[in-house]
Amino acid sequence: MPELLKTVLIANRGEIALRIIRACQELGIRSVLAYSEADAGSLPVRLADQAVCIGPAQAKLSYRNATAVLGAARAFKADAIHPGYGFLAENAEFAEQCEKEGIVFIGPASQVIRSMGDKIEAKKIARRAGVPTVPGSVGAISEQKEALAVAREVGFPLLIKAAAGGGGRGMRVVRTAETLAKDLTEIMSEAEVAFGDPSVYIERYLTDIRHIEIQVISDGERTLHLGERDCTAQRRNQKLIEESPSPVLDDDLRRGLAQAAVALCHQVGYRNAGTVEFVFDNVERKYYFIEMNTRIQVEHPVTEMVTGIDLIKLQLQIASGIPLMLRQEDIRLTGHAIECRINAEDPQRGFAPSPGKIPWFRAPGGFGVRLDTHIETGYVIPPFYDSMVGKLICWAGDRDEAIARMRRALDELVVDGVTTTSQFHKTILESPQFRSGEFNTAFVGTLLK
Amino acid sequence: MPELLKTVLIANRGEIALRIIRACQELGIRSVLAYSEADAGSLPVRLADQAVCIGPAQAKLSYRNATAVLGAARAFKADAIHPGYGFLAENAEFAEQCEKEGIVFIGPASQVIRSMGDKIEAKKIARRAGVPTVPGSVGAISEQKEALAVAREVGFPLLIKAAAGGGGRGMRVVRTAETLAKDLTEIMSEAEVAFGDPSVYIERYLTDIRHIEIQVISDGERTLHLGERDCTAQRRNQKLIEESPSPVLDDDLRRGLAQAAVALCHQVGYRNAGTVEFVFDNVERKYYFIEMNTRIQVEHPVTEMVTGIDLIKLQLQIASGIPLMLRQEDIRLTGHAIECRINAEDPQRGFAPSPGKIPWFRAPGGFGVRLDTHIETGYVIPPFYDSMVGKLICWAGDRDEAIARMRRALDELVVDGVTTTSQFHKTILESPQFRSGEFNTAFVGTLLK
Repeated sequence: MPELLKTVLIANRGEIALRIIRACQELGIRSVLAYSEADAGSLPVRLADQAVCIGPAQAKLSYRNATAVLGAARAFKADAIHPGYGFLAENAEFAEQCEKEGIVFIGPASQVIRSMGDKIEAKKIARRAGVPTVPGSVGAISEQKEALAVAREVGFPLLIKAAAGGGGRGMRVVRTAETLAKDLTEIMSEAEVAFGDPSVYIERYLTDIRHIEIQVISDGERTLHLGERDCTAQRRNQKLIEESPSPVLDDDLRRGLAQAAVALCHQVGYRNAGTVEFVFDNVERKYYFIEMNTRIQVEHPVTEMVTGIDLIKLQLQIASGIPLMLRQEDIRLTGHAIECRINAEDPQRGFAPSPGKIPWFRAPGGFGVRLDTHIETGYVIPPFYDSMVGKLICWAGDRDEAIARMRRALDELVVDGVTTTSQFHKTILESPQFRSGEFNTAFVGTLLK
Repeated sequence: MPELLKTVLIANRGEIALRIIRACQELGIRSVLAYSEADAGSLPVRLADQAVCIGPAQAKLSYRNATAVLGAARAFKADAIHPGYGFLAENAEFAEQCEKEGIVFIGPASQVIRSMGDKIEAKKIARRAGVPTVPGSVGAISEQKEALAVAREVGFPLLIKAAAGGGGRGMRVVRTAETLAKDLTEIMSEAEVAFGDPSVYIERYLTDIRHIEIQVISDGERTLHLGERDCTAQRRNQKLIEESPSPVLDDDLRRGLAQAAVALCHQVGYRNAGTVEFVFDNVERKYYFIEMNTRIQVEHPVTEMVTGIDLIKLQLQIASGIPLMLRQEDIRLTGHAIECRINAEDPQRGFAPSPGKIPWFRAPGGFGVRLDTHIETGYVIPPFYDSMVGKLICWAGDRDEAIARMRRALDELVVDGVTTTSQFHKTILESPQFRSGEFNTAFVGTLLK
């Protein structure tokens, strides 16, 4: 049996840095935290076994600076680098550099990151694995005749997107066959004029959808699924609340999603923790693969709370070359977990970031309550990074009890001096739709009108 | 189905008051906290829905003052009183007063508290229920001939205690049959001289023992067992560390203990949460009932963490007249939980209390870590009450991982300004005996020599 890694360099900050430090300490692995000047006084820096400043506040000069991170890893003789999420976590070039230097990148192989980072490539791999994808063209189509044929097969409503477009430009929803030819001609000419390329993507247009993802873990040989997370409570594609299990899945759908996620992993030769994301069509009750996140995710504690499995420790063990001891039949989901992302943002001002000093901080506590955060009384939220300052996770025997517990825990939470999304979470939790479990990705937006 | 209680008066302080407040809030029950002048600024007072000062700092004038507590319950129209542990929790007279006033006492019926509070009576009930008790005389024996006969039946080594003695006075260990008659004559004459009563108790003298207890919950009809807690890590009969499951029980012993606990509850007509305590003889691997605690216990979170069941909520539901929905087969123990009692005491000075101001407090966090405490930065520990200021509970997949997690969590815990047992817990957790799981009630004492 291979030995555990001796030293892991953590190339991240905030709550996820703390999360990784804790896992290392429990396993007896030395943790070295690479931090920016802006985070010099932060809790993770003080709790890590060792810490090294790798650059100025701006992420591109520190947390995203591959050269600085690799230099620190060499200096501290780290066997491995844990990238957390964001920053370098899905940077295939960085993973490749690690591979070349003989430092373990805690994640899948660089070519897997690269394949899954390319949306079209990922969709092709999914189809090869027999995983359903949103009906539509796989790549860009430049011939109108072919586009017409594909569109007729996809069915209505459908979405035509200029391949060279982006950010909502060059998009049109087509609702009936009658206008299809005309719409297609128009958008392809517009694309030709605007972007110098008439090519389009065609896709089924789904509106009443949920976002459901499957947590997977693999040692390269055995791939296990650890249940789903329902991330439908989003604002502008930003997840706000995640839960497990999903309130809408039945056993057949759950099994289908899990098998699809595992098949995709096998197809691509996946190793370490990953998340396979799907949209779930509420109307037809079908799921479609949309992308795979080749890293640990923000919302991973939801899965930890219902499975009892420490995902970061598994990442570290797999990165050490230790095979998974778990069998699929050992994984049992118990109760219900919900996570609320606590962002330093002001919902009254369009969720504008609200950095600044926290003169008083109080964490909620008690049975089933977990707060992953680096905040303490006196902490100053720097303006340079993501506005998420903590994740409040509540577990209980069932969904209603988990909601009641979360409601109580949010009441206990005090983050003075800045505005957070905490109050808005209460609004969501108290809404009849959220409580019923019957909602879609547009639901949170309706609470803001 | 009866409705939930509307208002519960909490006649306690510190972490257990907070624990009950949280359960009430999650269930939508109004919580009214009855507090002493010394606790006016405490976190539970601020978090309770309402709070009322019932007297001066000294417990006999406030927390133990039945008249003041009942007056507050009447004034706030409380349907019920939760006594927590300590103070009025096992006071049969108080429970009886509640019954007479038509206020629900959250615990068993007063006559059950009374029976179980009388050690000889409790032992008789246990024997009637077929529950093994430590071999020995049931009551006091005044005739030397009878004493000789009982002693021979009990076997050696045995303990002779003067019935009118106490605090170690009038006790003798008899190791062989040869000295029995002489020892018995001597101790009975000494008792006659010293206390005016020659009567003695005779009991098997067990030295290599563990302390193992079974958590039970009953709605008066159905009684469920929720696994054991091993509380062998004690200092002078004061529990320091509790864990579940016990590292020494096999399935047969576990089943036997659970059945004995349930049989005792049925025998006595038990209702609400309770704990049946046993000594476990390491040498013969047999267990003997010693006493029943007719209240929620300090270490109840250990059971909550391995079963996922919220014991305080069940107490409130049962007190509301709502029958248990759980079946025995629904109760599954998962993983391993350990609790360390964080006492403001100085192990270097014989565990003398260490009250005072806490200028900086940091709670540990992360997956599987629960800290039940009323401490915050700036809190002043009053000198009037028990020195326990918090309970750190860690859950993990197995015992080794739970120990590693506890070790890490203790490292994160900061209670500045006062001395706590935190460092001593690390000494225990790191000792080879504790790690092996093979130790007895004398073990903690050996670490202090």
